[in-house]
Amino acid sequence: MTETVLSSSTREVVIGFERPFVIIGERINPTGRSKLAEEMRNGNFDTVVSDAIAQVEAGAHMLDVNAGIPLADEPAILAEAIQLVQSVTDVPLCIDSSIVDALEAGLGVYEGKALVNSVTGEEERLESVLPLVARHGAAVVAITNDENGISEDPDERFEIARKIVERAAEHGIPKEDILIDPLVMPIGAIGSAGRQVFRLVRRLREELGVNSTCGASNISFGLPNRHGLNAAFLPMAIASGLTSAITSPLHEEVRSAIKAADVMMGNDAHCATWIAGQGDTPGAAQRGRRGGREGRRRAPA
Amino acid sequence: MTETVLSSSTREVVIGFERPFVIIGERINPTGRSKLAEEMRNGNFDTVVSDAIAQVEAGAHMLDVNAGIPLADEPAILAEAIQLVQSVTDVPLCIDSSIVDALEAGLGVYEGKALVNSVTGEEERLESVLPLVARHGAAVVAITNDENGISEDPDERFEIARKIVERAAEHGIPKEDILIDPLVMPIGAIGSAGRQVFRLVRRLREELGVNSTCGASNISFGLPNRHGLNAAFLPMAIASGLTSAITSPLHEEVRSAIKAADVMMGNDAHCATWIAGQGDTPGAAQRGRRGGREGRRRAPA
Repeated sequence: MTETVLSSSTREVVIGFERPFVIIGERINPTGRSKLAEEMRNGNFDTVVSDAIAQVEAGAHMLDVNAGIPLADEPAILAEAIQLVQSVTDVPLCIDSSIVDALEAGLGVYEGKALVNSVTGEEERLESVLPLVARHGAAVVAITNDENGISEDPDERFEIARKIVERAAEHGIPKEDILIDPLVMPIGAIGSAGRQVFRLVRRLREELGVNSTCGASNISFGLPNRHGLNAAFLPMAIASGLTSAITSPLHEEVRSAIKAADVMMGNDAHCATWIAGQGDTPGAAQRGRRGGREGRRRAPA
Repeated sequence: MTETVLSSSTREVVIGFERPFVIIGERINPTGRSKLAEEMRNGNFDTVVSDAIAQVEAGAHMLDVNAGIPLADEPAILAEAIQLVQSVTDVPLCIDSSIVDALEAGLGVYEGKALVNSVTGEEERLESVLPLVARHGAAVVAITNDENGISEDPDERFEIARKIVERAAEHGIPKEDILIDPLVMPIGAIGSAGRQVFRLVRRLREELGVNSTCGASNISFGLPNRHGLNAAFLPMAIASGLTSAITSPLHEEVRSAIKAADVMMGNDAHCATWIAGQGDTPGAAQRGRRGGREGRRRAPA
């Protein structure tokens, strides 16, 4: 079985077909959060730290850290954010940037085996990101678009995934260290977006034998009751073969759906996690958030 | 595409891969409901009628009607129940009995094209139920067990499904008029129960091209927060190819999961049903039940 191992200096997380689904917390990302962007630009990481703690307390197994702020010194900000997050939580991190220098700065300060987010099928990106991933012994998220953009045909996206896996092998990166991102489009705009993902992750699993991740919340963009949609999408993608997602752990509905999906896949032995979690169902998300705020007070200033 | 058409005298329901998922209300069944059994045995159909109305108001597209009461005159009770339910709702019915005489009595009074529940792969059952289904031009639920019981290997269950489809064809019943039941086992007892169903319904869809149904609630038998588990199981089974289920429409969580799954499968055009349903999300199930009680007062005594 294909198992992707990520680590901090003290904790290991394993992503795999026979493992509970891995939630990578999506919150530490200034895109669309202008207040957070302003804070990070000014060297204020209070929200970064509190978001980190709140997400881990709510059940995130890993955290995505993104510092994509226009006209800011992204490499320096990303490196500082990663060091701070690693000082207050022990979960492995996903170092998220479209700027290769920022990925490099993040990897330079990271303790453990990181997940790099991301490479694509674009030639320039393949040849800049893969050597970096190989040199640091990291794992990488591979997005299934290339110079031609995003195909609506999941079989074309599959061929891009295959190309990235082959190219990574040439750089000495084993397929275990690649998480393919099938690309989740908003279903309100593209009615086949769900079926595209289900078909692609099934092929990734059955034919390439690789793990996968995705920005799951994107499926419900622009629609009402997004958590209700996300809470159905994730189990459906998991049944099709998805093994992790970059999403929010802060919503009870979504967390519960993922735990139930683990039961359904036979990946929650004796349903032990499900049964143990039923004592604290109502309001658990709220408690997680409160815990996060308290946690921030304990965090280094 | 394979489309299974059921009808009452005034309403048609179509089950198919490109159609919204069909909910067959499970409540009218005295198994494990001793009060209802006692009422039905004594010719009191008040609960039958109120359960019928409440389930339809809550969103059931069809209703299962079962009168399996030990030592009672099941054919007469089932026929009366069907006539009463047809007098207060216009959804097509699923005539549910393990006794062939009761199926025959139900079909005798039914107005429209009924769903007969069920035939199995057992020789005696095949040769008694299939001629009855053919004679009445009905559709039939085919359960994937045979003289050897229930296999835990979904591929063996698939072979039973194939055998039933072939045998039905010999009786002039087209595959469009067969819903295969993959058999849902309690996942608390059999950890692979979910994967068994997902694999089998996918093969039913891809290789046999038949529609399917199942007793969905059975998956969570014996576990806490059953609605939470059912609300993940159904979308996962739908992603794998399930096109209808005999389940309870009375729980908002499960109903919402099914509607979200329709969106994800691209079977809710422009997400119109999802968007329209968001106005009445909280407490909708309660309103549905209240509606049911009022409905009973209007129903014939």
